[in-house]
Amino acid sequence: MLDQTKPVGLSDNLEQVLEDFVDVRTFSEKLCEPLKPEDYNLQAIAETSPAKWHLAHTSWFFETFILKKFLPDYTCFNSQFEYLFNSYYNAIGEQYPRPQRGLLSKPDVKVVYRYRQFITEQIKQLVSDLVEANSNNLNDVLSLLRLGINHEQQHQELLLTDIKYNLFQNPLHPAYRDSEDSLPQYSPKEPSLESIKWITFDEKLVSIGVNQTDAPISQSDFVYDNETPRHKFYRHSFEVANRLITNGEYLEFIEHGGYSDPQYWLSDGWDAVRNHQWQAPLYWFKKDGNWFIYTLNGVQPLPLNQPLSHVSYYEADAFARWSGARLLTEQEWESIAISNTPETAMNNFVEDNVLHPVPAADNEQLQQLFGDVWEWTSSSYSAYPGFKPAAGAVGEYNGKFMCNQYVLRGGSCVTSRSHIRKTYRNFFYPDARWQFSGIRLARDH
Amino acid sequence: MLDQTKPVGLSDNLEQVLEDFVDVRTFSEKLCEPLKPEDYNLQAIAETSPAKWHLAHTSWFFETFILKKFLPDYTCFNSQFEYLFNSYYNAIGEQYPRPQRGLLSKPDVKVVYRYRQFITEQIKQLVSDLVEANSNNLNDVLSLLRLGINHEQQHQELLLTDIKYNLFQNPLHPAYRDSEDSLPQYSPKEPSLESIKWITFDEKLVSIGVNQTDAPISQSDFVYDNETPRHKFYRHSFEVANRLITNGEYLEFIEHGGYSDPQYWLSDGWDAVRNHQWQAPLYWFKKDGNWFIYTLNGVQPLPLNQPLSHVSYYEADAFARWSGARLLTEQEWESIAISNTPETAMNNFVEDNVLHPVPAADNEQLQQLFGDVWEWTSSSYSAYPGFKPAAGAVGEYNGKFMCNQYVLRGGSCVTSRSHIRKTYRNFFYPDARWQFSGIRLARDH
Amino acid sequence: MLDQTKPVGLSDNLEQVLEDFVDVRTFSEKLCEPLKPEDYNLQAIAETSPAKWHLAHTSWFFETFILKKFLPDYTCFNSQFEYLFNSYYNAIGEQYPRPQRGLLSKPDVKVVYRYRQFITEQIKQLVSDLVEANSNNLNDVLSLLRLGINHEQQHQELLLTDIKYNLFQNPLHPAYRDSEDSLPQYSPKEPSLESIKWITFDEKLVSIGVNQTDAPISQSDFVYDNETPRHKFYRHSFEVANRLITNGEYLEFIEHGGYSDPQYWLSDGWDAVRNHQWQAPLYWFKKDGNWFIYTLNGVQPLPLNQPLSHVSYYEADAFARWSGARLLTEQEWESIAISNTPETAMNNFVEDNVLHPVPAADNEQLQQLFGDVWEWTSSSYSAYPGFKPAAGAVGEYNGKFMCNQYVLRGGSCVTSRSHIRKTYRNFFYPDARWQFSGIRLARDH
Amino acid sequence: MLDQTKPVGLSDNLEQVLEDFVDVRTFSEKLCEPLKPEDYNLQAIAETSPAKWHLAHTSWFFETFILKKFLPDYTCFNSQFEYLFNSYYNAIGEQYPRPQRGLLSKPDVKVVYRYRQFITEQIKQLVSDLVEANSNNLNDVLSLLRLGINHEQQHQELLLTDIKYNLFQNPLHPAYRDSEDSLPQYSPKEPSLESIKWITFDEKLVSIGVNQTDAPISQSDFVYDNETPRHKFYRHSFEVANRLITNGEYLEFIEHGGYSDPQYWLSDGWDAVRNHQWQAPLYWFKKDGNWFIYTLNGVQPLPLNQPLSHVSYYEADAFARWSGARLLTEQEWESIAISNTPETAMNNFVEDNVLHPVPAADNEQLQQLFGDVWEWTSSSYSAYPGFKPAAGAVGEYNGKFMCNQYVLRGGSCVTSRSHIRKTYRNFFYPDARWQFSGIRLARDH
Ligand SMILES: [Fe+3]
Ligand SMILES: [Fe+3]
Ligand SMILES: [Fe+3]
Ligand SMILES: [Fe+3]
Repeated sequence: MLDQTKPVGLSDNLEQVLEDFVDVRTFSEKLCEPLKPEDYNLQAIAETSPAKWHLAHTSWFFETFILKKFLPDYTCFNSQFEYLFNSYYNAIGEQYPRPQRGLLSKPDVKVVYRYRQFITEQIKQLVSDLVEANSNNLNDVLSLLRLGINHEQQHQELLLTDIKYNLFQNPLHPAYRDSEDSLPQYSPKEPSLESIKWITFDEKLVSIGVNQTDAPISQSDFVYDNETPRHKFYRHSFEVANRLITNGEYLEFIEHGGYSDPQYWLSDGWDAVRNHQWQAPLYWFKKDGNWFIYTLNGVQPLPLNQPLSHVSYYEADAFARWSGARLLTEQEWESIAISNTPETAMNNFVEDNVLHPVPAADNEQLQQLFGDVWEWTSSSYSAYPGFKPAAGAVGEYNGKFMCNQYVLRGGSCVTSRSHIRKTYRNFFYPDARWQFSGIRLARDH
Repeated sequence: MLDQTKPVGLSDNLEQVLEDFVDVRTFSEKLCEPLKPEDYNLQAIAETSPAKWHLAHTSWFFETFILKKFLPDYTCFNSQFEYLFNSYYNAIGEQYPRPQRGLLSKPDVKVVYRYRQFITEQIKQLVSDLVEANSNNLNDVLSLLRLGINHEQQHQELLLTDIKYNLFQNPLHPAYRDSEDSLPQYSPKEPSLESIKWITFDEKLVSIGVNQTDAPISQSDFVYDNETPRHKFYRHSFEVANRLITNGEYLEFIEHGGYSDPQYWLSDGWDAVRNHQWQAPLYWFKKDGNWFIYTLNGVQPLPLNQPLSHVSYYEADAFARWSGARLLTEQEWESIAISNTPETAMNNFVEDNVLHPVPAADNEQLQQLFGDVWEWTSSSYSAYPGFKPAAGAVGEYNGKFMCNQYVLRGGSCVTSRSHIRKTYRNFFYPDARWQFSGIRLARDH
Repeated sequence: MLDQTKPVGLSDNLEQVLEDFVDVRTFSEKLCEPLKPEDYNLQAIAETSPAKWHLAHTSWFFETFILKKFLPDYTCFNSQFEYLFNSYYNAIGEQYPRPQRGLLSKPDVKVVYRYRQFITEQIKQLVSDLVEANSNNLNDVLSLLRLGINHEQQHQELLLTDIKYNLFQNPLHPAYRDSEDSLPQYSPKEPSLESIKWITFDEKLVSIGVNQTDAPISQSDFVYDNETPRHKFYRHSFEVANRLITNGEYLEFIEHGGYSDPQYWLSDGWDAVRNHQWQAPLYWFKKDGNWFIYTLNGVQPLPLNQPLSHVSYYEADAFARWSGARLLTEQEWESIAISNTPETAMNNFVEDNVLHPVPAADNEQLQQLFGDVWEWTSSSYSAYPGFKPAAGAVGEYNGKFMCNQYVLRGGSCVTSRSHIRKTYRNFFYPDARWQFSGIRLARDH
Repeated sequence: MLDQTKPVGLSDNLEQVLEDFVDVRTFSEKLCEPLKPEDYNLQAIAETSPAKWHLAHTSWFFETFILKKFLPDYTCFNSQFEYLFNSYYNAIGEQYPRPQRGLLSKPDVKVVYRYRQFITEQIKQLVSDLVEANSNNLNDVLSLLRLGINHEQQHQELLLTDIKYNLFQNPLHPAYRDSEDSLPQYSPKEPSLESIKWITFDEKLVSIGVNQTDAPISQSDFVYDNETPRHKFYRHSFEVANRLITNGEYLEFIEHGGYSDPQYWLSDGWDAVRNHQWQAPLYWFKKDGNWFIYTLNGVQPLPLNQPLSHVSYYEADAFARWSGARLLTEQEWESIAISNTPETAMNNFVEDNVLHPVPAADNEQLQQLFGDVWEWTSSSYSAYPGFKPAAGAVGEYNGKFMCNQYVLRGGSCVTSRSHIRKTYRNFFYPDARWQFSGIRLARDH
């Protein structure tokens, strides 16, 4: 069970929060170890922020929502950072324009690391002071600390997906890291849709989502507001593929003219294909007649039995239609996760340090539900019945994005194992391809 | 009950289809009577097609899906029309670019009317021949004829909303028609949110949608594929406003700074406000300190107790949040419509010839559910469980648009009474404002 | 000599101005005779105004600069026209946005013709009143009338080039007029660059331009301010081609890969080729392997010995470079025109009613200097030494455009013979192709 | 005389070229000393390339045009650099897209410095080998070396103007360098247009431009092809201001509503004002009612008697019109420079290390003709009579840009003193503001 893996390194007491806090702060910096100063500032498109910005913004989050609020006489590290590193919190104030984050050569990398250290120390000092003073604020601070930890974990994932995209723009195709050792070897064998096993789920009234505990401190109690409240939905019977779609299966779609036949595509999807001139998933390219794939570990020949990644919702939907199937709704997905999640369905998170999806085992069990790649669902991201956004500025965290985006479930090879859970809802615009996003098929039963 | 109003002028036998066919062909032309040749070609934006194009395209639909398929040796009126008047059917072939429809001065208005007459006669001849030949194709043809009738009704509504938008671009603000008689007089009294009555609906498993009859000929059997199949959904308890939001209530939102405070808005909505510099609904403008509204009948001082119209989904959502309520889901909406629709909730369709929404009666009953203005729901337009699009090219009618759009329900003052029904799903992008689209509030109970 | 052809129909006395005024007003309407109401409003791009707009704007010019100024108690035909039909005179006030002129279905065609008649009558009445009153203003009014006549002639040319462009957007390729009679028959023979005769001009100090007479009334005295003052320039020796470049010669450039080799192009020209995906002059298209050309008289197989038309400055420059030659400067061009203009070099104006360039005669004389097509020069449009723009709002007529445009000389087959002269300077942006613009080569001697 | 200052540090023999070569290579790197690795990659707009790109591209120039051509068996430092660091030479091959140069985090700064050193050494070795071999190629190589030296000097100026623009995008307004010492102190006194002295130049036939020596090696013989050939032009009499326009004088224009009154502006200029919302020169901003200016040395209160800089051609032209004067033509400018250039008119180049324009002396002499700021002329950049571009790929250096740009003369405070000369023609698009570009007035006499 996924829940059983969670407690590793996380607990609900004060020491645990502080330990998790220090761990998460350290891990962000560890992820940047392969980077040179020149790499820290790359931003190819508005969506892919520079690594340095992620490092600063996650510190800004603790500073803005905890230090400025709970530390009397708090002196900012730099008063202009409030503007520079605010992502989208209108309640806090104006924001430096997102598409121009790559133009901030100052503060330089060293200053940002000093900023990080300053914030980390101030937070530790604040907690220590509150404990000593037996303050009523302690619980609120620890709860916000837990939110900030989860926030930084999200940005760790983005840091990796963003640097991947940004480095890929360079015709030299530089790898994020030098990694001959860590790259798994893939067998060349080509999987086919026929090898998918279909698992049936019955018609049933199901409860999904979760009710929020007030100000939770432990990671096992923590959820985002968008996962609440727990509520019923009526599930119709369906079948689900036991594993993810592979590169080899998707290549078949391409070779059957998938990208040149509008019949498989949503109208907006077909527009996207033509406007962006898509001919393959992001990071695939053909050279001298052979397909290659760019990964965080560099370029390699396309491994056919590896899970497909970096497709948009439109491509996921078109592939599903071409193969006579469909995507899952997020409710269906969650109903699977809560009913039937073998240990084997959880694998390959950022802690495993592969940073790329790995092939399924050759058996009929449900696999790859968590980790490897996020699974596009056919559900537009929207409020659950009875949803109320969190109070205050942090209420902007999730609720205001409930429009025009589609839900993805299950985490990926660059998600923290301690961050993901069965009720977790990720969301991106349907043309987004720079996340580790793939396909699991379903069909009506 | 809405169903009781349907049979007027529509029946399920052959004569009825033909009568409906002739009626719908005639009505399109009647709607164009106030237009001069110069007005027929106007197209201010890609979305608002010229009246002439609507007249031709609805004929193209009958020609393409019936005449070319069922009439041996059919000779086109003009072979280039296949390309010119194809809206979006990729299975038929390439399409003349939508944003440039206003550049087609040829075929001129007279030729298009001749084209219409030609198609109408050919269809009548085909049906007569099939009857005489006792052909197996008769049923398919009549069923497609029914589809074409409904298709032309949809375009009649668009013809009016498009000409309204297109004429409004002219600083002279010319009216669509000269209409001193038909304009209802409005009392000046200003309604308030307090006067809304809230009607409660209980938690319950409900069935919505409808199963499609094979090749239905009568209007009472007709539905679009997107309304199918009938399926269950679990409804949580909620309350709904007994009437639509008025201009006066929306004006209060404006005067409380609604358009300048991001806290009320979805993130994409706030972007839209700033990008388009929205400060009021479409067709509202301020002159010398007073608000005016442009209608199909010309400009008039803003009537405060008239239903609000021409707002985007973003504005509907923001207004709801500002007023402490929310929009309905389309499932909630349909569950109201099927459970509890007094005669008074159906009013003001295109046949009533007002072409503008009218105020609610001053009572506590559920009102304005059908007619007046389309009601934005919070539901992203998507496939019902088990949905299968219609076979062939007409399968492009609805299914491929199930992405990024939001569902509206109930029809408007420019919808045909015989066209609308409880299961009817309309859909537009969330920034669309040129339809008669308004707001009904709901809240959790 | 061109000057000798000028007096035809134009003289310097009062009656002549009034006669010219009535003629020009009539001729604009004659040019619109082939148009249906639907054609009057076409505007495919910002640059190509609707015919109806030209008819109204030329009336607005007389109203604004004469009637409003010299007629006491003048009552506007419609006060909103001041805004609607102002082209670019900031001194008069704000202007209705140029790219949206095609959206003005009102005032309709009939109203615009009434507006024209109203203005024409008011002008005649004003002149008659001034004569009767022996007014000091008479001379100023007649001089402005002369300006307005020339202004309307310019718009007559634009009316034709704009309607040509606008009708061409229609895949039906409708002709402007039905014209089997008026179309000259072309021999198929293919001319070559070898057949060009080069005429030599010596190094010399030359005077060009003209000094403006105060308030000229006769057409023979009239010039635009941008042709003034007369001044000296030092001409280096050069050679000029005796005739224009033909379609056949330009086709050779195309077939030698002219549009795919950057070495022939200015940097901005190469950008234009790629951005617009130019592969041939405007109005050329290939069908089943054969080249066709769209003309005001409809589509026809490409005539090889016809003068090339509808190329941009970039294409003119690239063709010249490819052929080892260059374009003329405007000073060189004028120095030819004033020194050596045989009767044969003036031919084919709008009065000839061909509305398309015609082949050169097969001799070694200088030909086609006036009429047929405007000749791109390599001169950026700028002020002559000592230039002063006209006083008042009409000073915006020419001077403010002296930037980023290139000078064309000699008039075209849609220019009035009485409008063009040796010192006349036309100007367009270097990417403009919708004028009748062609190429005459020169080279250093 | 400017010519007398040229020989300083430059001579026409072999040793001198090599010394100049080493000096220019060293100086580029010296200009980058204040930069941190994060600063090297900044690119805010397509026009402002990263410092690292300038360092690499200037090396690429020597590699491409000398090493690859004259060194048998030359092995590239990195074969992909041919594509990455080609600016615009189509004859060499495709180019990495200019707007994305800022995305090249690799090669990193250290690698680019190694690349520079490699190229420098290879060039020195090549020359040494050619000398030893008594090769016929020596002269060609040295001549190309001289071209490459001048090319690198141009990029040194761009490096400074680009980094200034790129750093300014950062709301922290970081200075390029820490420079308390080098900043001159300015007196607060406000100069006025009345204090300008007008110097008269007579009507006269003048020769300008220069004839190119074949393959010149010495800097004193070196010119760009666009300065050739020497030719006559007829100068009309005019007057010229003895000094540049100051910030204080331009502020007067602003305060008189210069940016909100179209009467002063070219039509394209007025469009630019509105599209870019210009309200002051680039780098000026108002804070709490006071004007400040951003310089390479940081932010300072606006010095009123400093020469105005960083205006577009449109602003220069509008200011001139507002003040009742005009700009010089480039021919007029050169005729001044060759007739009458006191020592005092040459001052403040990059070697002076001020990196900002300095006030004129308080006397009536001609001042500031060279250095301080480039002077916009009213001349569109075009070919001189008889111009032939250099042969081969280096022919793309200048000729293909002779369209749509305006000539600037005289160099600036970031130009090398040894680089500028009387015949030197710089050119930029009329909306460009990121160069040190200012205004000298002229008027007809
Ligand atoms: Fe964040
Ligand atoms: Fe349609
Ligand atoms: Fe005009
Ligand atoms: Fe360069």
